[in-house]
Amino acid sequence: MSDRNIRLESADKRAIEDQEVEIVERKGIGHPDSICDGIAESVSRALSNLYLDRVGKVLHYNTDETQLVAGTAAPAFGGGEVIEPIYLLIVGRATKKYVKDGETLQLPVDSVALRAAREYLAENLPELDVGTDVIVDVKLGEGSGDLQDVFGEETQEVPMANDTSFGVGHAPLTETERIVHEAERALNGARYGDDHPELGQDIKIMGKREGDVIDVTVAAAMVDAYIDGMEDYIDAVEDVREFVSDLATEYTDREVNVEVNTADDYEEGSIYLTTTGTSAEQGDDGSVGRGNRANGLITPNRPMSMEATSGKNPVNHIGKIYNLLSTHIAETVVDEVDGIRDLQVRLLSQIGRPIDEPHVADAKVVTHDGVTIADIEDDVVAIMDRELADVTDITRRTIEGELSTF
Amino acid sequence: MSDRNIRLESADKRAIEDQEVEIVERKGIGHPDSICDGIAESVSRALSNLYLDRVGKVLHYNTDETQLVAGTAAPAFGGGEVIEPIYLLIVGRATKKYVKDGETLQLPVDSVALRAAREYLAENLPELDVGTDVIVDVKLGEGSGDLQDVFGEETQEVPMANDTSFGVGHAPLTETERIVHEAERALNGARYGDDHPELGQDIKIMGKREGDVIDVTVAAAMVDAYIDGMEDYIDAVEDVREFVSDLATEYTDREVNVEVNTADDYEEGSIYLTTTGTSAEQGDDGSVGRGNRANGLITPNRPMSMEATSGKNPVNHIGKIYNLLSTHIAETVVDEVDGIRDLQVRLLSQIGRPIDEPHVADAKVVTHDGVTIADIEDDVVAIMDRELADVTDITRRTIEGELSTF
Amino acid sequence: MSDRNIRLESADKRAIEDQEVEIVERKGIGHPDSICDGIAESVSRALSNLYLDRVGKVLHYNTDETQLVAGTAAPAFGGGEVIEPIYLLIVGRATKKYVKDGETLQLPVDSVALRAAREYLAENLPELDVGTDVIVDVKLGEGSGDLQDVFGEETQEVPMANDTSFGVGHAPLTETERIVHEAERALNGARYGDDHPELGQDIKIMGKREGDVIDVTVAAAMVDAYIDGMEDYIDAVEDVREFVSDLATEYTDREVNVEVNTADDYEEGSIYLTTTGTSAEQGDDGSVGRGNRANGLITPNRPMSMEATSGKNPVNHIGKIYNLLSTHIAETVVDEVDGIRDLQVRLLSQIGRPIDEPHVADAKVVTHDGVTIADIEDDVVAIMDRELADVTDITRRTIEGELSTF
Amino acid sequence: MSDRNIRLESADKRAIEDQEVEIVERKGIGHPDSICDGIAESVSRALSNLYLDRVGKVLHYNTDETQLVAGTAAPAFGGGEVIEPIYLLIVGRATKKYVKDGETLQLPVDSVALRAAREYLAENLPELDVGTDVIVDVKLGEGSGDLQDVFGEETQEVPMANDTSFGVGHAPLTETERIVHEAERALNGARYGDDHPELGQDIKIMGKREGDVIDVTVAAAMVDAYIDGMEDYIDAVEDVREFVSDLATEYTDREVNVEVNTADDYEEGSIYLTTTGTSAEQGDDGSVGRGNRANGLITPNRPMSMEATSGKNPVNHIGKIYNLLSTHIAETVVDEVDGIRDLQVRLLSQIGRPIDEPHVADAKVVTHDGVTIADIEDDVVAIMDRELADVTDITRRTIEGELSTF
Repeated sequence: MSDRNIRLESADKRAIEDQEVEIVERKGIGHPDSICDGIAESVSRALSNLYLDRVGKVLHYNTDETQLVAGTAAPAFGGGEVIEPIYLLIVGRATKKYVKDGETLQLPVDSVALRAAREYLAENLPELDVGTDVIVDVKLGEGSGDLQDVFGEETQEVPMANDTSFGVGHAPLTETERIVHEAERALNGARYGDDHPELGQDIKIMGKREGDVIDVTVAAAMVDAYIDGMEDYIDAVEDVREFVSDLATEYTDREVNVEVNTADDYEEGSIYLTTTGTSAEQGDDGSVGRGNRANGLITPNRPMSMEATSGKNPVNHIGKIYNLLSTHIAETVVDEVDGIRDLQVRLLSQIGRPIDEPHVADAKVVTHDGVTIADIEDDVVAIMDRELADVTDITRRTIEGELSTF
Repeated sequence: MSDRNIRLESADKRAIEDQEVEIVERKGIGHPDSICDGIAESVSRALSNLYLDRVGKVLHYNTDETQLVAGTAAPAFGGGEVIEPIYLLIVGRATKKYVKDGETLQLPVDSVALRAAREYLAENLPELDVGTDVIVDVKLGEGSGDLQDVFGEETQEVPMANDTSFGVGHAPLTETERIVHEAERALNGARYGDDHPELGQDIKIMGKREGDVIDVTVAAAMVDAYIDGMEDYIDAVEDVREFVSDLATEYTDREVNVEVNTADDYEEGSIYLTTTGTSAEQGDDGSVGRGNRANGLITPNRPMSMEATSGKNPVNHIGKIYNLLSTHIAETVVDEVDGIRDLQVRLLSQIGRPIDEPHVADAKVVTHDGVTIADIEDDVVAIMDRELADVTDITRRTIEGELSTF
Repeated sequence: MSDRNIRLESADKRAIEDQEVEIVERKGIGHPDSICDGIAESVSRALSNLYLDRVGKVLHYNTDETQLVAGTAAPAFGGGEVIEPIYLLIVGRATKKYVKDGETLQLPVDSVALRAAREYLAENLPELDVGTDVIVDVKLGEGSGDLQDVFGEETQEVPMANDTSFGVGHAPLTETERIVHEAERALNGARYGDDHPELGQDIKIMGKREGDVIDVTVAAAMVDAYIDGMEDYIDAVEDVREFVSDLATEYTDREVNVEVNTADDYEEGSIYLTTTGTSAEQGDDGSVGRGNRANGLITPNRPMSMEATSGKNPVNHIGKIYNLLSTHIAETVVDEVDGIRDLQVRLLSQIGRPIDEPHVADAKVVTHDGVTIADIEDDVVAIMDRELADVTDITRRTIEGELSTF
Repeated sequence: MSDRNIRLESADKRAIEDQEVEIVERKGIGHPDSICDGIAESVSRALSNLYLDRVGKVLHYNTDETQLVAGTAAPAFGGGEVIEPIYLLIVGRATKKYVKDGETLQLPVDSVALRAAREYLAENLPELDVGTDVIVDVKLGEGSGDLQDVFGEETQEVPMANDTSFGVGHAPLTETERIVHEAERALNGARYGDDHPELGQDIKIMGKREGDVIDVTVAAAMVDAYIDGMEDYIDAVEDVREFVSDLATEYTDREVNVEVNTADDYEEGSIYLTTTGTSAEQGDDGSVGRGNRANGLITPNRPMSMEATSGKNPVNHIGKIYNLLSTHIAETVVDEVDGIRDLQVRLLSQIGRPIDEPHVADAKVVTHDGVTIADIEDDVVAIMDRELADVTDITRRTIEGELSTF
């Protein structure tokens, strides 16, 4: 166990939940930055599967650089139109040829990336006409020749870290974090979205807690085809407000104030109306790694990694793996061990050593009153050790799409 | 009638049919250059209809510059795949804003162009997966502001020529021309193509007549999904050869030799196999105006216009109109007047005069033995005058897609 | 000699010079289509030289597809500016890797193409700021693997024709043709251009002869930095008119009327003023093979090849070679043999035979009065035979930039 | 003063300098992400100056999205070459037209952006041939029409916050932070770089402190033209190591271990050799906002903003302004007030209020032993108030290029 360098120590500060001011943000799946994250990650999964399928292992690639250039649209009550399509450029590196049994395989990485991106858009942005509202372009170069990395049935070994990198995860989420996260998931999901086609996918939620008052600000793109006039719009906004207000009570007893589309000016007719459900149709560009962290949130109160997780190779990109793993470990520990009010898990890799043996694996904990570090140390360390040993499961789950990266 | 400057004179040479050597070529609809022509023209029609629909008249545009960059493919018996998508760039000028009744309309020219191109591809290249085998990009700029041209219900006037340009048409087609033209149309149409999915759309036919021997050379892309092995391929090639040989007898009594895919080398396994039915998938780039002339043929024995007809504005682009009109006039005259063995009609515009009053409208005729120019002159001139007067009908038919431009 | 299939026959029609109506056009080097031709050909030369330098022979490539998308400019007396840069996309195929002595050479074709294009622009469009007025992009794919063609010291053999293609050349030029051609060359050259920086490079000249009256219409972009006001502009236009009028008298005794920038409307302030000397800065797109033929002219009265000569591989692209060679042969014959009023040379290749053995090499001649075909036949045939034997000299001269292709 | 909502409180935790483990990273100016940051910011400055120059105030724009697609290179001792150019896409929004005194001005934002980018590259990457090693493309759309923001002589007012956003700054830097930051600045500056042309600009430095041992890992691209063989290379690496080791002693008494290019494998010949001095030439893509924060460092131990500062409009983009301002305030306070061991300044905007009146301006301080919050509170609050009042000075200094954003 010592080769994992696991440490548990007191966080030596108040839990986030107990600090005076807390800020949390989540960009919904239709936000331009999240669209890029989602495409980058879906391209990554598609390439992993292509390589596993054709070669039996995941080869070198990295597709963490999708760029979105906003289009132009003319939304209108009852249904407007896209004037100039959105432009999406998929950027990255991928292995295009592989010699197997003496034969050179050509791997259709560009076509696979294009398909993955278009399918992702069709699935996640139902009001976007993938044929005419967006141009998807691809520039995948080849990387350095000596980086043909390996994952899959042929090798059961744990990969070596190829970089000094850092991942950080937290648990449990604070009330504000849960409200922000769950509200977006519910608005964009079965619980609300399925019955509310007028609500677009570009939903940005900011939560700000000062003491015991939580302000939730929602910016929600409305879809013009389902909104016949200003009254409809006002109703749609109010529906979102009520839904989020109700949902918040499931997560907190604090006072919660919800505001939706605060920048609207009904008199000027300046409202957040879109044709496609995303501001990418007009004015908002986007790129990968600029929005949510691997746990789905932006949390300036907590240490965060700058790493763009989406699109990275889940076999050997240690930054991606450690961000997902540290989050997973934090959640697992809090799930299995009682008495923890706030837990931060940090993993630091060491070049050239197996990724299940980090250079540092430290956990900082704030316990509930009456619980000491000593009370929980053995359990926490055992779980961390177990999950680190199982690191390649993170890779598997990422490839299979079970883990979200944004 | 004098203001049309119509002249009829003797061609003062042998009819093409009677010359010793004749060369004719047609690039089928799936040839990369023809794909560009087809897209440029379908974009043009879509813009004309957009303007008529929204503004009541056709505004200034020109979309005669589509560029195709070939992809990469790995065809294989039973079905291969596209490795790197084809890249298509739609280029041109279009009016994007129009002030109507004091209100500025935004015209979705980019989206309309994109839709037209994608629909054209889906319709004409059934084996091409428009979602993943091709990237369609658009760069439509705005033209000069003072060129807001007008066509439609609001104005019944004939437009003025805005350039000195030239159109030329011929009739009747020679036997070789008819064989080349009809063979491609039949192979790509209901008569053959519908029952032969193994035949791709990229068919290039060259006819060469020396005296009374006509050699027809067909290069026909085969579609791998319908071809299970070399025998299938050889059968498919032979089927085409027989079909074209039979078809040729409908148009000539001369000796006709047909060869198909002469560059094949069966021993080397070097054959014309594709995944999508077009060589654009691998190695052959394309652009507008580089292939067939407005009558669907390349005929170096006859005067030709360099003008790229496809994609040009059919209301005011005099080069496009006069090429289509001169061909139409030549065909109409030959249809209605007996005794003509070869007719060439040439129209030359004059800047600033109505387009139904060309600077020169000359017809050069070779008559059948026993027929003099004088015998037919009145009829020919009357038809020319009538058709020139009806010049805007060319515009209408082009917008409605009745006239092919390539 | 018989294996060259040379034939000489009477043209069986009047010389172009003697026909009633003649139309001739030349797009100057700064015309958007000519810019594309020039870049395509300079890229081609650069690649030929790269291959000769690194590999000792010319490898497979084809770069005949440059696409220009016009920019936006705001010209103004005394000096305006480019608002949106011109976009140039170099398209084609090129061999990127070559195994030499067991070692794989990487050939920097993209960088070389980019450099050639930028240098060409800098040299030929002095008022265009290559750094900021134009974006040059490159998409060079790899062609079919089995087409590694060969030219250079290692092989002295004549290449085989790889296609059925056709070239046609004429001599001598008619008076109208000479005036049109020479006027552009002089305006854009030392004789006029060097002392007239106010004259841009985008000069389009159309010549129309009816009987003995030649109308020359010049459209000439003026450069705003050298034109301080409307008077300057009018002077500049008048200077061009006088220069071309004078120049014309060197080539003809016919009546010549010259008009310059006829579309100008001084009252409206609508004049042909540019910042960069080319209409590509605003509104006029361009592409390869849409302008001048290999002899520098567009001559609808004469048979022309549709082949885009510029950018094609000069070693093995038979269409390029035969167009240049037929023009060269026609000029040489007329130069060396007296008594020829009009000569057309046509070369038709035969797949799989050496390119110095065309399938047909026919010359059609109109002799001066008193000269018969028999008088000149031996000489003409001997020259044609000699020049065909020397076909690879065309390749050499093209690579060295001695032959213009447009 | 109360309307600035300034608070000072104890950080309630150890100073970063006193924590057990500390990680710091800086991507040098030649790193692909930093290249994008640098271009985005230089484009931003150029647009600000364009607007000030032409309109007298800064109009709406945002250019924080440059995307870099890596090229291909073949470095070699003594001088290699770029095979495939780097592709750079400048993305953003900018106001292209402005009505001034009844006249519509066209603003050359695309050309200005292109020029700024090319000049930035030429200045900061001396070994990159801007003409042929890189393609710079531009896609600047127009934003929402109602966002014509204002800064400059005409208005002296403080702008309103248009978003809820957050900035955070720290001071003083820890020893590890200073070493990492200063080492890159010195290596890329006059102190080392000027005499060491063999050192490229792509330098990535990671510092890791555990207790009192600081490990500094440098990845430094070497430039092949100045390195004649492996011995030269080894010397160059050793020079960097020694220089950084020496420099570190200026900032700490702790043990410092420096390693340079640890991934090299001399036996395999696998070293960090480049032609242009940046890994963007081969394999490493880049984009804006993915590297250094506004203070030039990535510091996972400290709260960071996700905001991409580079390229944002410095007049009205509250996230940019508050990140720069909070850093500036922290530095100023530490400079002017004694007794502070660690200071964090956080600014949170409130939509619709002047940006000098933040919703929250809180400072968390760790004092030196013997100093209490009360001792310094008045001074700190006074400085914060003063600097907040002077917020537009941040805008001015950013436009004038005095403040670095990455």
